[in-house]
Amino acid sequence: MAKKLANHTIGVDIGGTKILAVLLDDQFRVKSEIKLKTKPEHGDAYFLEALEDGIETLLQDTGLKREHIRAIGAGCAGFIHPTTGVVSRSANLPFLKNYPLAQKLSKIMRKPAFVGNDVHTGLYGEHQFGAAKDRQNVVGIFIGTGIGGSLILNGQTYTGASGMAGEVGHVLFDPNGPFCGCGKRGCMEAFAGRLAISSEAAAAAARQRAPHLAAQAGTDLRQIKSGMLAKAAGQDKIIAEIIRAKARIVGGLMATLVNILNPEMIVLGGGVVQAMPRLIVPEAIKAMHEQAIPDAARRVKVVAAKLGDYAVAMGAAKRAWDKWS
Amino acid sequence: MAKKLANHTIGVDIGGTKILAVLLDDQFRVKSEIKLKTKPEHGDAYFLEALEDGIETLLQDTGLKREHIRAIGAGCAGFIHPTTGVVSRSANLPFLKNYPLAQKLSKIMRKPAFVGNDVHTGLYGEHQFGAAKDRQNVVGIFIGTGIGGSLILNGQTYTGASGMAGEVGHVLFDPNGPFCGCGKRGCMEAFAGRLAISSEAAAAAARQRAPHLAAQAGTDLRQIKSGMLAKAAGQDKIIAEIIRAKARIVGGLMATLVNILNPEMIVLGGGVVQAMPRLIVPEAIKAMHEQAIPDAARRVKVVAAKLGDYAVAMGAAKRAWDKWS
Repeated sequence: MAKKLANHTIGVDIGGTKILAVLLDDQFRVKSEIKLKTKPEHGDAYFLEALEDGIETLLQDTGLKREHIRAIGAGCAGFIHPTTGVVSRSANLPFLKNYPLAQKLSKIMRKPAFVGNDVHTGLYGEHQFGAAKDRQNVVGIFIGTGIGGSLILNGQTYTGASGMAGEVGHVLFDPNGPFCGCGKRGCMEAFAGRLAISSEAAAAAARQRAPHLAAQAGTDLRQIKSGMLAKAAGQDKIIAEIIRAKARIVGGLMATLVNILNPEMIVLGGGVVQAMPRLIVPEAIKAMHEQAIPDAARRVKVVAAKLGDYAVAMGAAKRAWDKWS
Repeated sequence: MAKKLANHTIGVDIGGTKILAVLLDDQFRVKSEIKLKTKPEHGDAYFLEALEDGIETLLQDTGLKREHIRAIGAGCAGFIHPTTGVVSRSANLPFLKNYPLAQKLSKIMRKPAFVGNDVHTGLYGEHQFGAAKDRQNVVGIFIGTGIGGSLILNGQTYTGASGMAGEVGHVLFDPNGPFCGCGKRGCMEAFAGRLAISSEAAAAAARQRAPHLAAQAGTDLRQIKSGMLAKAAGQDKIIAEIIRAKARIVGGLMATLVNILNPEMIVLGGGVVQAMPRLIVPEAIKAMHEQAIPDAARRVKVVAAKLGDYAVAMGAAKRAWDKWS
């Protein structure tokens, strides 16, 4: 079939607990989507099979065939080689260790496949279709369970010497701070990621300072997710204060990034920001201005991400499209 | 005269107290050089005249004429528009306020002129001719009176949205720290720049803990420059300890930059590093490894700058050459 008819793409967001796959037309409109459970304990064969089934469903759903697909792109948590698409390791998907994921995806799809870090493809999605369109120098900060980051410099995703650029969540905030998932202490993420917010919120609930949260979610961190925090912040004053304090820490990180990179835009995204942008974004901006070089801070526009859950899959699909067009 | 004969360049380093101008041949070898006093109190007409006289001397010295000069490049402290060469402001040269320096240089030389930030052109010099040759992603940290920085990303000087990228000296280290030249408190530069080192060294001398320094320089910060500190560090144990403690702070900044940019090389330069690289570089590396993401830290090579006082002028001349070749 002629290449011009193969004008659809598939984008996949491979997370620690779930996979989102989307089928996009040549205008990058979502024609169909499917969510799958990751089930890391079942290993890579199960994972690939589930993904292949999912993609079959997308094709059936839209009445398309593989011949209509130009390429597939996936964003995956972990360290991914920027050109080969080999996953060195992924904290939440232990079977992806030195794993040639791009090659495997290409094999099941019989199409070219691109694999990138999920935060990088997420910001690229925002750059191509969302909050950062037509911006040349953009920093993305994504606050979920942890804090991820990505850079678009001179219009392109900047991956660094070995694909690891943008690890803003592990910038040191205070050496006496709490332990971080990375094994060190006091990282930004250990202070202001979702787990840090939930921990402090749970402590407030335990101290009976947050009755709404205590009634709705108790003191179990697994129950205190972003949506719950957003609701509680409307009722329990202390929860709103905790979230604002964390937003100010993120604002300090933004100041560091402004001083180093002089970007024209900062995109704030991730589940925590998505659940309560109006609580977080203005507070972070205020703190940024207190600490950044004024001329550089005035130059930067700070916005919330726009694409939500679609950013990673859409950005990955676009990277694949760019590469094979 | 044919362009191929105009194969020399002039490079100028415009500092707060002195100017270094060099004449370079087509292999970028220094054929002649001259140092001038800046005398900011005399204004811009005097400054341009002194510079023109200096360049005349370089030409006479080498037996060359203006026709042999392809272009002139200057590195200047301050905020400089990345494409026009207009200096918005320069702390040490107050007459350079919204000043079209590139245009003025071009007029006195009757040749194309490039003007860039001195730290940017200095790192570019190291990238083209010195410690960072053939490296694609390089961070430069220059410790002088203050701390300056510059980034080479994907092989090119990265200036950011408004020419201000690389201001690593104003990354916040501790909000309770000493006041910085920028008006804020607790910047990296206020903790680990030369004035910060000299202040702490002078306090040690005042407490009679640094007898060598006290005898040689007393407790006057103007006397305690980099060379003096380097000598004192060999005699007074406390001075060596102070310098190592400051190097560890710089190592923390390096960790932040490694986490954000995943560079392949960090170049440490400036008067302080130049005077005592063996005291500073290893200590900074050690601290960097304690705080940076291990995979990214392992990837980066940390080296001392090589070109010393010539880096800024040579880098600026090369930028001019690149632009008009």
